[in-house]
Amino acid sequence: MTKKWVYLFDEIVQAQEYVDGDWGKVRGLLGGKGANLAEMARLGIPVPPGFTVTTEACIAYLDGGGTLPQGMWEQEIEALHRIEAATGKKFGDANNPLLISCRSGAKFSMPGMMDTVLNIGLNDETAKGMVALTGDERFVFDAYRRLVQMFGSVVMGLPDEIFEQVITAARRRAGVETDAQLTAEHWQTVTREFKEIYRHQTHHSFPNDPNDQLKLATEAVFKSWNGKRAVDYRNAAGIAHDLGTAVSIVTMVFGNMGDDSATGVAMTRNGSTGDNQLEGDYLTNAQGEDVVAGIRLTKDLKELKTEMPAAYNQFEEITRKLEKHYREMQDVEFTIEHGKLWMLQTRDGKRTAQAAVRIAVDMVEEGLINREEAVLRVTPEQVDFFMHPQFDLKATQTARDEGKYLAHGLNVSPGAACGVVAFDADLAETWSKKDGQAVIMVRPETKPDDVHGMLAAEGILTSRGGRTSHAALVARQFGKPAVVGVSKLNIDLTKRLLIVDEKIVHEGDWISVDGSSGEVFLGKIATSVPDIKDPSLLKLLAWADDFRRLGVWANADYPRDAERARDYGAEGIGLCRTEHMFFESDRLPLIQKMITSDRYMDQKAALDALLPYQREDFAGIFRAMDGLPVILRLIDPPLHEFLPSHIDLMDELTDLKIRLQHADTLAQIDDLLEQVRTKEAILKRVESLREANPMLGLRGVRLGIHIPELTSMQVRAVFEAACEVAREGIEVHPEVMIPLTSHVNELTVQRGILEAEARKVMTEQGVEVDYKFGTMIEIPRAALTADQIAGQAEFFSFGTNDLTQTTFGISRDDAEAGFLIEYMEQDILPDNPFATIDRDGVGALMAIAVQKGRSVKPDLECGICGEHGGDPKSIQVCHELGLTYVSCSPFRVPIARLAAAHAALKEKEKPKSSDS
Amino acid sequence: MTKKWVYLFDEIVQAQEYVDGDWGKVRGLLGGKGANLAEMARLGIPVPPGFTVTTEACIAYLDGGGTLPQGMWEQEIEALHRIEAATGKKFGDANNPLLISCRSGAKFSMPGMMDTVLNIGLNDETAKGMVALTGDERFVFDAYRRLVQMFGSVVMGLPDEIFEQVITAARRRAGVETDAQLTAEHWQTVTREFKEIYRHQTHHSFPNDPNDQLKLATEAVFKSWNGKRAVDYRNAAGIAHDLGTAVSIVTMVFGNMGDDSATGVAMTRNGSTGDNQLEGDYLTNAQGEDVVAGIRLTKDLKELKTEMPAAYNQFEEITRKLEKHYREMQDVEFTIEHGKLWMLQTRDGKRTAQAAVRIAVDMVEEGLINREEAVLRVTPEQVDFFMHPQFDLKATQTARDEGKYLAHGLNVSPGAACGVVAFDADLAETWSKKDGQAVIMVRPETKPDDVHGMLAAEGILTSRGGRTSHAALVARQFGKPAVVGVSKLNIDLTKRLLIVDEKIVHEGDWISVDGSSGEVFLGKIATSVPDIKDPSLLKLLAWADDFRRLGVWANADYPRDAERARDYGAEGIGLCRTEHMFFESDRLPLIQKMITSDRYMDQKAALDALLPYQREDFAGIFRAMDGLPVILRLIDPPLHEFLPSHIDLMDELTDLKIRLQHADTLAQIDDLLEQVRTKEAILKRVESLREANPMLGLRGVRLGIHIPELTSMQVRAVFEAACEVAREGIEVHPEVMIPLTSHVNELTVQRGILEAEARKVMTEQGVEVDYKFGTMIEIPRAALTADQIAGQAEFFSFGTNDLTQTTFGISRDDAEAGFLIEYMEQDILPDNPFATIDRDGVGALMAIAVQKGRSVKPDLECGICGEHGGDPKSIQVCHELGLTYVSCSPFRVPIARLAAAHAALKEKEKPKSSDS
Repeated sequence: MTKKWVYLFDEIVQAQEYVDGDWGKVRGLLGGKGANLAEMARLGIPVPPGFTVTTEACIAYLDGGGTLPQGMWEQEIEALHRIEAATGKKFGDANNPLLISCRSGAKFSMPGMMDTVLNIGLNDETAKGMVALTGDERFVFDAYRRLVQMFGSVVMGLPDEIFEQVITAARRRAGVETDAQLTAEHWQTVTREFKEIYRHQTHHSFPNDPNDQLKLATEAVFKSWNGKRAVDYRNAAGIAHDLGTAVSIVTMVFGNMGDDSATGVAMTRNGSTGDNQLEGDYLTNAQGEDVVAGIRLTKDLKELKTEMPAAYNQFEEITRKLEKHYREMQDVEFTIEHGKLWMLQTRDGKRTAQAAVRIAVDMVEEGLINREEAVLRVTPEQVDFFMHPQFDLKATQTARDEGKYLAHGLNVSPGAACGVVAFDADLAETWSKKDGQAVIMVRPETKPDDVHGMLAAEGILTSRGGRTSHAALVARQFGKPAVVGVSKLNIDLTKRLLIVDEKIVHEGDWISVDGSSGEVFLGKIATSVPDIKDPSLLKLLAWADDFRRLGVWANADYPRDAERARDYGAEGIGLCRTEHMFFESDRLPLIQKMITSDRYMDQKAALDALLPYQREDFAGIFRAMDGLPVILRLIDPPLHEFLPSHIDLMDELTDLKIRLQHADTLAQIDDLLEQVRTKEAILKRVESLREANPMLGLRGVRLGIHIPELTSMQVRAVFEAACEVAREGIEVHPEVMIPLTSHVNELTVQRGILEAEARKVMTEQGVEVDYKFGTMIEIPRAALTADQIAGQAEFFSFGTNDLTQTTFGISRDDAEAGFLIEYMEQDILPDNPFATIDRDGVGALMAIAVQKGRSVKPDLECGICGEHGGDPKSIQVCHELGLTYVSCSPFRVPIARLAAAHAALKEKEKPKSSDS
Repeated sequence: MTKKWVYLFDEIVQAQEYVDGDWGKVRGLLGGKGANLAEMARLGIPVPPGFTVTTEACIAYLDGGGTLPQGMWEQEIEALHRIEAATGKKFGDANNPLLISCRSGAKFSMPGMMDTVLNIGLNDETAKGMVALTGDERFVFDAYRRLVQMFGSVVMGLPDEIFEQVITAARRRAGVETDAQLTAEHWQTVTREFKEIYRHQTHHSFPNDPNDQLKLATEAVFKSWNGKRAVDYRNAAGIAHDLGTAVSIVTMVFGNMGDDSATGVAMTRNGSTGDNQLEGDYLTNAQGEDVVAGIRLTKDLKELKTEMPAAYNQFEEITRKLEKHYREMQDVEFTIEHGKLWMLQTRDGKRTAQAAVRIAVDMVEEGLINREEAVLRVTPEQVDFFMHPQFDLKATQTARDEGKYLAHGLNVSPGAACGVVAFDADLAETWSKKDGQAVIMVRPETKPDDVHGMLAAEGILTSRGGRTSHAALVARQFGKPAVVGVSKLNIDLTKRLLIVDEKIVHEGDWISVDGSSGEVFLGKIATSVPDIKDPSLLKLLAWADDFRRLGVWANADYPRDAERARDYGAEGIGLCRTEHMFFESDRLPLIQKMITSDRYMDQKAALDALLPYQREDFAGIFRAMDGLPVILRLIDPPLHEFLPSHIDLMDELTDLKIRLQHADTLAQIDDLLEQVRTKEAILKRVESLREANPMLGLRGVRLGIHIPELTSMQVRAVFEAACEVAREGIEVHPEVMIPLTSHVNELTVQRGILEAEARKVMTEQGVEVDYKFGTMIEIPRAALTADQIAGQAEFFSFGTNDLTQTTFGISRDDAEAGFLIEYMEQDILPDNPFATIDRDGVGALMAIAVQKGRSVKPDLECGICGEHGGDPKSIQVCHELGLTYVSCSPFRVPIARLAAAHAALKEKEKPKSSDS
C-alpha cells in the first residue's frame, strides 16, 4: 500500500497524529493553514471543500530531486474527484467548472514561501462556462487574468511589474483612472496579453489543462521551501530546515458574486486593548484582496448584522465556537457567496502586550484556560512593555493623519523616544550633556566610536544594519529605544540632513522613534507613562507568584529605590551598594580626605564623619523593608574611583605650568606655584593608587583587610541603624555581605572584625538584632572552594557581572563596546554574556558553588545580585540551579516574577529525564 | 604491669617499634640521640653505658600536669643500677662515683629545647672521691663548677652571665688572662660561689643528692618541650606539638684525663665537596666543648693516626661501619679516655648542595643505596644551587682572614651578589639603570614603595624582618640574593652609613652578600660560575629521568635559549612567545607601523616585512630542537604594549607646548607645531587602544580574530620555516598554540585560518610537515568547557599565570608588590599563588580541564607553560593531575627533572588509598 500523501479536510480524523491528540504533529503534517481548515471542517464549520498534500510529500519530493513521490499525484486527483462530488462541479468542465486555490502552509508561519494561487481551473473554455453560469463576463475575465498573473509571478517567478505595466497601458488606452472602471472587454484583452507575456518569458504556453495548472502549482509550493528567502527566514527565526511545507487545495468561493456576497476579516477580541468583543472589517460584493489592500473603504463588521443578519449570526456563533475550541483569540477570514457563509482561515490572533495580559486574565475568568496557561501565555518581554514609555496611541494616529509618518524599520530595542536629530556622536553628547537637550542619534550605521553618543541620546535611528548590528546590540544593552535598517532614510552627512520620499529633516529638527513598533515620525509625539498598576497585570503577576519557586528581591541603594522595589513586589533587598552613598556631593570630600590622608588620625576623623550619613541611609532602607531581609554589601570599588582622574589632573597641571610661563607678577607666580604643588600632591596619591588592572586590584574585601577601620565604620553604621529602627517597632533583618572573596581566610578575618563591632554596638544600644554574615561569590576561586567558604558564610550571593568578567577573562568596560560586539556579529558568542548568563561556563561555576556550599550547609541561602537577575533566560538558569532568589533592579522585578513562574511551570511540563 | 618508660641502650631490641623495623617510630620513642646511641650499642660499638627515658614518659608527665608517670622514676633508678653494674662505679658513692650526663632528644632536632647537663653525680663527697681516683684536683673542681653552672642555667633557667661574672672576677683576682691559668683552688672557690648564687637566686640549696640532681634534670628536659622557644620553633618548622622529647642518661667519659685521652668530632665524608674521606678535628687532653668553642687550635684527625694508632684504627673502622649501617654520611663525636675509645653521638651529617649530589651518587656506586634513594636524597632546591653564582670558597675564606666578615643574618634568597651600598630605592635604581653600577640595596626593612629599587639591585640586605618579611618575599620572587634580619647592622639613613661593631660602611662602598649562607662581607668577593655540568649531577639527573612520568620541556623565545634548554635536558619547547621577537629594535618600528596605520595596505605591508624575521627565528629554534616538539604561541599581548606609554607621550606633549610658548622664530614655531601634531596623532591611537583592564582586554586570540592577517602572517612564518628546515633533513614538529581562548568558537574560527594557510604554504613549498593545533588553557571558562574545547584542539597547555590571575581575580602586576605581600604576612594566603600553584582553586580548575579534555580525547597532550612549571611544589601537583609535561625556563629544567622524579617516587612510596 502506498503512503497516504493527501488528506481531504474531513479526513483529518484518519491521521495517526490526530488520533494521538498531538496537535503540534498535526500542524507538522498538514501545515498550520491545512490543519486549521481540516479542524474547522471536523467541527462542522462551513469550509469550502478541499484537501491538503502533506509536508511528508514535500520532503519526499525535495529528497527525490524533484520527483513527485509514488502515488501522490493519483491521490491528489482522487481527492479532487471527491471535491467534485461534494460541490457538484467538475474541474475543467466547460459547463460547470470547479475552480480551486492552491496555498502553501508550513508548521510555522513563513513569509519567505510561495503564498497563494487563486482561480486554478480557468481556461478559455471554462471561462466561457463561468460567464454562462454567472452572467458576469467582467468578473470572469478579471478572475482569469488574475490566474495568469499569479501563475506567472508566483509559480514561474516572473516579475510582477511586467503584468502591472500591461494594466497601466490598458487604463491609459481606455482613458480611465482605476481598474474598477475597466470593462469585461478590457480584461479579456489584458488576459490575452498576459498569456503572451507568459509564453515569451517562460518559453512555454500558459497551461490550458487545469490538471497541469494544479500539478505545476503544487510543485512550485514544494520548491519554494528551499527558496533563498525561505531559507534565510528559517535561519533567522531558528526554524529547522527539514520540516517541509504542505499544500492546501481549496474550492474557490466568491464574495464578489453580487450584493448577496461579501468578504471580510475579523478578530475575536480587540488586539490592542484585549477587550472581549468581536471586531472586523468587510466589503460587500468584493474579493478578499480588496479588504486587505485598503483601496476601498471597508465597513465595520457590526454593519453586517443588519445587512445580512443570518450570515452575521452564523458567523458570530462560529467565532465563539472557534475561540472556545482553540482556547485562544482567533484571527479569521470569511466569504459570503450568494448569502452562504464560508470560513476560509482561522489562526491565533496577534496582539499588543497589554492585550496579551488582558486576554490571558479574562480567559481564566471565563473558564477557558487555567491560571498556569494564562501565566505561560504572557512573555516576560511583554511585561517589560508596561515598564517603558510608549507613544500615546491617539497622538500616534493624529501624527499619521497629519502626514508626519516618516518610515518604518526594524524594532530592535523597545520604548518610545523623542529628540532632535544629531548626525554624529560628539554632537549628540554635547547637546545632551552640555545643553540638556533630548537627542536622537541618526547614523547610516554605528561603530564602537559612536557609543558615547548613543549613551547620551534618547534613542537611535540607522538606515542600515539588522537585529544583530552594532546599533541594535548596543541599544538593547543600554535600554535605548532604537529603530535600525530604515532603508528609505537617505542620510546626507555633508549637508547635515536626511530625506525620506519628499520629506527633509535637518539636523536639530525633532523626530520621534518607536522602538517597539519600528515606526519613525516627524516632530514630537506625546508618550504615555507606563501603567504597571494595570489590574490584569497585577492579577497575572499574583498568579505567577503562586507558581514560582525563586524569590524575587531587588537591588536598591537608597530608601526611595527600596520603596519602589517593594511596591513592585520585591521580597527583600539583595544588594545595597553602600559605596554609592559615598558619591553624593556632601560625602565625597570626606571619603577623599580619608584616602589622601597620610595620618591615621585624619583617616579616622573622616570615617567618623561619614558614619552618620551611612547610618541614616541604612535606617531609611530598613524602614522601607520592614519584616524583609536587606543585604548590605561593604565597600567594593577601588579607592581611586573616588579621586579625580589621572588624565584630568595631568591636563590641569599642564595648563597651570603654561600659565606659569606667562605670569607677570610675583604674586601670580606664587599663587600658581602653590596650585601646582597642591595638584602634584594629589597626583602623587592618585599615581600611588594607580593599578594596571583595577578590576583585579585592591578592591572589595581586599580594601577591608587593608583598612580594617573601613569595615568597622560600615558595620557600626549598619548596626546603629538597625538598633535605632528596631526600637521604633520595625522588624529588621540585616545581612552583611563581603565582596570579592577569593579565599576563606579573607572571610575569617573580616568576620572577626564584624562580629566584634556588631556585638559592641548591640551592647551599647541594648538591642539584639537578627543578622547574617555572608559573601558574594564573584571570583572563580570562591565558587571552586565554596565548601570552605560556606564554613564562614551564612549566605552566598552570586555577583555574576564580576564572575562573568573573571570566568571569561573579559573586562566589561573595555569589551562591551569593543570586541564583544565583533564576537556577537560573527556569532562567536551566541549572547552577550553580560546580559544573559553563560550557562556552560559561568553557570557551571555557579552549579559547583551551590553544590559545594550546600554540602556543608544544606539550607544555605544562595541568590544572585548581578544584572542577570532581571534577565528571563538567566532567571531560567537560576531556577534550574536551585537558587533561593534573584535580585534585580526595581524596574525588572515584575518581569522577574513572571520569568521565575515560567521556569517553574516549564519544569513541571517537562519532568527531568532522570533522578540521578 | 606498668608501662616500660625506660630503655637501657642495649634494650632497644625489646621495643616493639624496633621489632617492627620502623626506625622512624624508634626515633619517635627514644628521640634521635637516644635511638642512635642505642643502635650503636646494639651494633657492638663502644658507647658509654646509659639509658633513655621515652617521649611517652614526657607526654604523660606534661599531660599529668607535671607528675612523673607511675613507675617511671623506679625504672630510671633500676636502669641506673644496671649502669653501675656495667661500669663498676656507683652513683653518689664517695669512693668510686658514677658521673652521668643528661641530654634532651626529640624525634626531630630542635634547637629550642634544653640541651645537656654534664657531670651529674658530683657533690662535695663524690668530688673528693674523684680527686682520689684521678689525682687531678683541678680537673675535678672544674667539672664540679660546670655541673653547678649548667644546672643553674639549663635546669633552673638562671642567666648564664651571673656565673660568667664570677669567673671573670676570679681571673681578675688571680691576675690571669685565661681560664686555663686558673688553679684547682680557684675552681674550688668558684664552685662554692656558684652554689651561693644558686641558693640566692632559686631560694633552694644546690641539690647535693645525685638522685635529686637526676630527677630535677629529667623533669627540666620534659618541661623544656613546652618552653616558649621550643613551641615557636615547632610552629616555624611545622613540627607537631604532641611528640614530646626523650631524655638520655649517659655515663660520663673524659677526654681530659691526660695525654692518653682526647676528644673530637668527625664527618665520614667531606661536607663541602662530598669527597669520600674521613675528616675531623680533635684535641688531646681536652673536653668536647674545647673542640667546638674554637679557643684551642684543633688538630687534624689524620694526626691521631700517629698519636694513638690503635684508637684511630678502631675509630676509622667504626665510622665505616656506621656509614654502612645508616647508609648515610655520618657526623660523629668521640672521646678517648685513657686510650679507650668511646662514641658519644652519631647523626646524619650536614652538607652543601654539591656534596649532597656527590655523596648520593657515590653511595649508589658503592652499593650502599639504590638510585631511587639517591634521587630522593637531593632536593630540587639543592639542584638550584648549581644554577646560581656562589662566592668562591677560597675567596670567602681569604675575606674572613682579612677581617672583612661583617655579619650574619637570615639566608632568605639564594645566590651571591656584590655591589655598592645604596640606602634608598630611587638611588639604587638611578645608579643601576643610568650608571650601570652594581648595587646592593640596604634598608632597615623594605616596603612596597621600594620594589623598583629592589628590582634594580643585585642583592638586598636588611637589618630587620624575617623569612616572610616584605624584603624576603620580594627577593625570592624576583630571584635576588638577599640577607635579612641582620640585627647587628646599625643603619644611619641621615649620615648615609651603616655601622657593624666598629666597622663603618658608607653609601657607595662595596659589600658582598651571600643569600645562600646569610653572610655579609666588606668589599667584593669573587663569585664562581655555577657548574651545571658537574658529573655527579648529570648522573643523578639521568637517573631522575628514568623515574619521572612527567616530561620536562622548556620555554624559549630564541634559538640560543632553545639550545641551552636542550643542553639542560629539555625534551621539547613548551612555549615560544612569538611576540617577544617583535620587541627587538629592528622589528618594533614595523609592528608599530602595523598598529598605527589606518589603511589596510599599510598594515599588510608592515606584516609582510615582519614575516622574514619571524621565519628566521622559528627556523633557528626548529634546528635546535631537531626531532622534538616546538610549541609556538601566536601573538598574545595587547597592541598598546608595542607603543610608547600614554604618560610619556603626555609629558613630551607638555614639554613641546611649553617650548612653543617660548619659540622666537617662525621656523621654530612651525617645527614645534609639526612635532605637536605628530605626537598628538600617536597619542590619539594610544588613547583609542587604552583599556581600563588590559589584562582582560583585546589580546590573545581576540587579536587574531580582530586582525586575522596577524594570524595568517604568523602561521605562514611558522610553516615556511618548518618546510625550509625539513628540507635540510631536520625533523620538525611544530605545534601552533592559540592563547587566551575562552570559547570553543574562537578556536574554530582561528583553526580555519590556520589550516588554510598551512595547507597553502605546504603546497607552495612541496613539503608536508607534521603539526598540531592547540590552545592555552588560561581562562577559567576554557577549563570549565574543556570537553568542547578538546573537540577543536589537539593539545592543551595550562597558562597558570593568567589562570591564577583570573581564578583569584588578582592582577599580578599590581598585587605582587602590593596587597599580596600583606596577605602573606597576615597568613591569609599560605603561599604566593603566582609562585606555587594554588591547589584548591587553580588546581581544581586544571583537574576539571584534564578530566573533561581527556573524556573527549583520551591521549590529549596536556602541559603547563606558566612559571609554575619550574616550581617543585607545583610540579608535584602537575604530576598528580597526570599532565604530559611541565615547561619552564631553561635554567629551571634540571630542577624540574628532579622534582618530577620525586613526585613519581613519592607516589610509588605511598600507593593511593583507593582505586576509585
